[in-house]
Amino acid sequence: MIRKLDARQRRDWLTLARTETVGPVAFDQLIGRFGSAATALEAIPELARRGGRAGALRMPSAAEIDRELDDGEALGAQLLCACEPDFPQALAALDPPPPLIWARGDIGLLGRPSVAVVGARVASAAGQRFARGLAAELGQAGLVVVSGMARGIDGAAHEGSLATGAVAVLGGGVDDVYPHDHADLYARLVERGCVVSESPPGRTATARDFPRRNRIIAGLSRAVVVVEAELRSGSLITARLAAEQGREVLATPGSPLDPRARGTNDLLRQGAAICEGVDDVLRALEGLRDLGEREPRAFPGPPAEPDAGLLSRVADLLSPTPVSRDEIVRTAAAPAPAVFAALVELSLAGRAELLPGGLVARI
Amino acid sequence: MIRKLDARQRRDWLTLARTETVGPVAFDQLIGRFGSAATALEAIPELARRGGRAGALRMPSAAEIDRELDDGEALGAQLLCACEPDFPQALAALDPPPPLIWARGDIGLLGRPSVAVVGARVASAAGQRFARGLAAELGQAGLVVVSGMARGIDGAAHEGSLATGAVAVLGGGVDDVYPHDHADLYARLVERGCVVSESPPGRTATARDFPRRNRIIAGLSRAVVVVEAELRSGSLITARLAAEQGREVLATPGSPLDPRARGTNDLLRQGAAICEGVDDVLRALEGLRDLGEREPRAFPGPPAEPDAGLLSRVADLLSPTPVSRDEIVRTAAAPAPAVFAALVELSLAGRAELLPGGLVARI
Repeated sequence: MIRKLDARQRRDWLTLARTETVGPVAFDQLIGRFGSAATALEAIPELARRGGRAGALRMPSAAEIDRELDDGEALGAQLLCACEPDFPQALAALDPPPPLIWARGDIGLLGRPSVAVVGARVASAAGQRFARGLAAELGQAGLVVVSGMARGIDGAAHEGSLATGAVAVLGGGVDDVYPHDHADLYARLVERGCVVSESPPGRTATARDFPRRNRIIAGLSRAVVVVEAELRSGSLITARLAAEQGREVLATPGSPLDPRARGTNDLLRQGAAICEGVDDVLRALEGLRDLGEREPRAFPGPPAEPDAGLLSRVADLLSPTPVSRDEIVRTAAAPAPAVFAALVELSLAGRAELLPGGLVARI
Repeated sequence: MIRKLDARQRRDWLTLARTETVGPVAFDQLIGRFGSAATALEAIPELARRGGRAGALRMPSAAEIDRELDDGEALGAQLLCACEPDFPQALAALDPPPPLIWARGDIGLLGRPSVAVVGARVASAAGQRFARGLAAELGQAGLVVVSGMARGIDGAAHEGSLATGAVAVLGGGVDDVYPHDHADLYARLVERGCVVSESPPGRTATARDFPRRNRIIAGLSRAVVVVEAELRSGSLITARLAAEQGREVLATPGSPLDPRARGTNDLLRQGAAICEGVDDVLRALEGLRDLGEREPRAFPGPPAEPDAGLLSRVADLLSPTPVSRDEIVRTAAAPAPAVFAALVELSLAGRAELLPGGLVARI
């Protein structure tokens, strides 16, 4: 299923990805079921209707797709689709991967082994110095450093790795420069590094974009190092996502009297490896198997048409508490492909939310 | 073998413990082989001669023993022998235990569940504040806090636990007040807590007393918490001894940029539990089985007389690199009791050193 898309196929891929209620999980299922974005686009209005949708499914117009493609081109950014050979291998290994990313700058960096260095926005001077030094040492060891361009640790990690390989993942579009005092850093990242986003160019980041941003930071990286983080902070979410995806998680210790060490010390308590410097990261990477050649993606089983009875049974089993799709399959006592197809139809109808990690919830 | 000694037996026990070349391992073997200190004392000149000793074995005179007992009495200190019921249970569980300790102050504290809090002498203000607070919280949780009365973390741990239960273990005698600026702390420890030492009263600590002091700190404690420690510091030795004795080891994390956190972070890397506060210690203690009733000590096998051939074979197998006694038994292809007896004779002769942990080396 790894293939280069032509211009027409890329438009379809982008259209499906930007269709209302189609997240990465549904996208993945639909491509698996229908074989192409074009066929999926033809089928989904009917699927949404069968799933119980009252109004029409909101799909982007040809003009909207033109504008996103033109905006990207104007920025010199490239659209990379998950099925394409130049899509970052580590990101393609996610289950499911983001359907597409925009990348501005040196996209060659996205193919190199990478480590994320992330942490608190309100970071101590010592923490920033440590992050900058660690990033520089990782770069000297041949690793690309990924971070989120936030204030504090993220910014220091980019500064330390600009000379050797820096990748910034943004919540907004690849041209969404935030915070504003990182305008100069952003310009240098575009010139010497690479800026990546799942959002369309021109989009300003909102709070709900950051979990997706964090998932890409973790997804691009073989290991995530958290330097200073309070409890319940975004960096810990990135660490959790990394662990779920089988990536290494490291944390830099700090004094129990410093609230900025609470999150990292808690990661250590939960089994993260300790990170006092580049050697700790290199040791953690030794344990990882090489990602190797990118393997053909195994898509879910053969097409299956769920009947109306199964659809309503599955809908009744959902609750606002996320449960695994496998549990729904067991409880519904129906074939997995049929249950998965029913869940996609319910999600297109806006009645179910398909979450990464195989979870599903009622909306 | 748990028994109360009478005055005469205590003198013999003390005499054997203070005899040249008789360390805790040889003491333990000799009591096992001869049943009492008195019989062992009669036998050891001949054992030392057979082991190859040229001159006479230096044993304390009756006057010297009188003086040690009088000195202790003058201080109001008590001599506790390892076979006696009031010897601290956790310390008696060591293999081998120190033959005896002197204790000044409230010896009732030695029977209560204890945790050691130790660390750097040149400690940061934050580290000392943390140690003091942790010790106070441990005290409120009903735990006695053990430390080494050194400057820095040790002193802070004592200060924090004086009101609830503080035990100081000294390298010199129980009256060896060092450092001098801890004279006031020492006075309060004697008045409200307990001061313990394996050395005779009146002895000033030398460098070689501290490993034995550290072994008692670990031995009295169910868990050892290290707060700030540089690499290759005494606190790390205490932690290693604790781990060897099956006690829990915890370490307080710190910034990689602070050299005083190198030792504690390294302990975390080696698998110590993280300690950010009293809850972490209580959690670590949950995993420990209760020390329960003190069990009769299993002494090594029946008496065995090693012949001259075995003695010289065993002597030839030793080298300055410590090896396990079991390895000597295997290589010598002789019964373990006979090999152990040969090793005691060689140690009395000053040709072998019997180390805790079942190791032996050529002197």
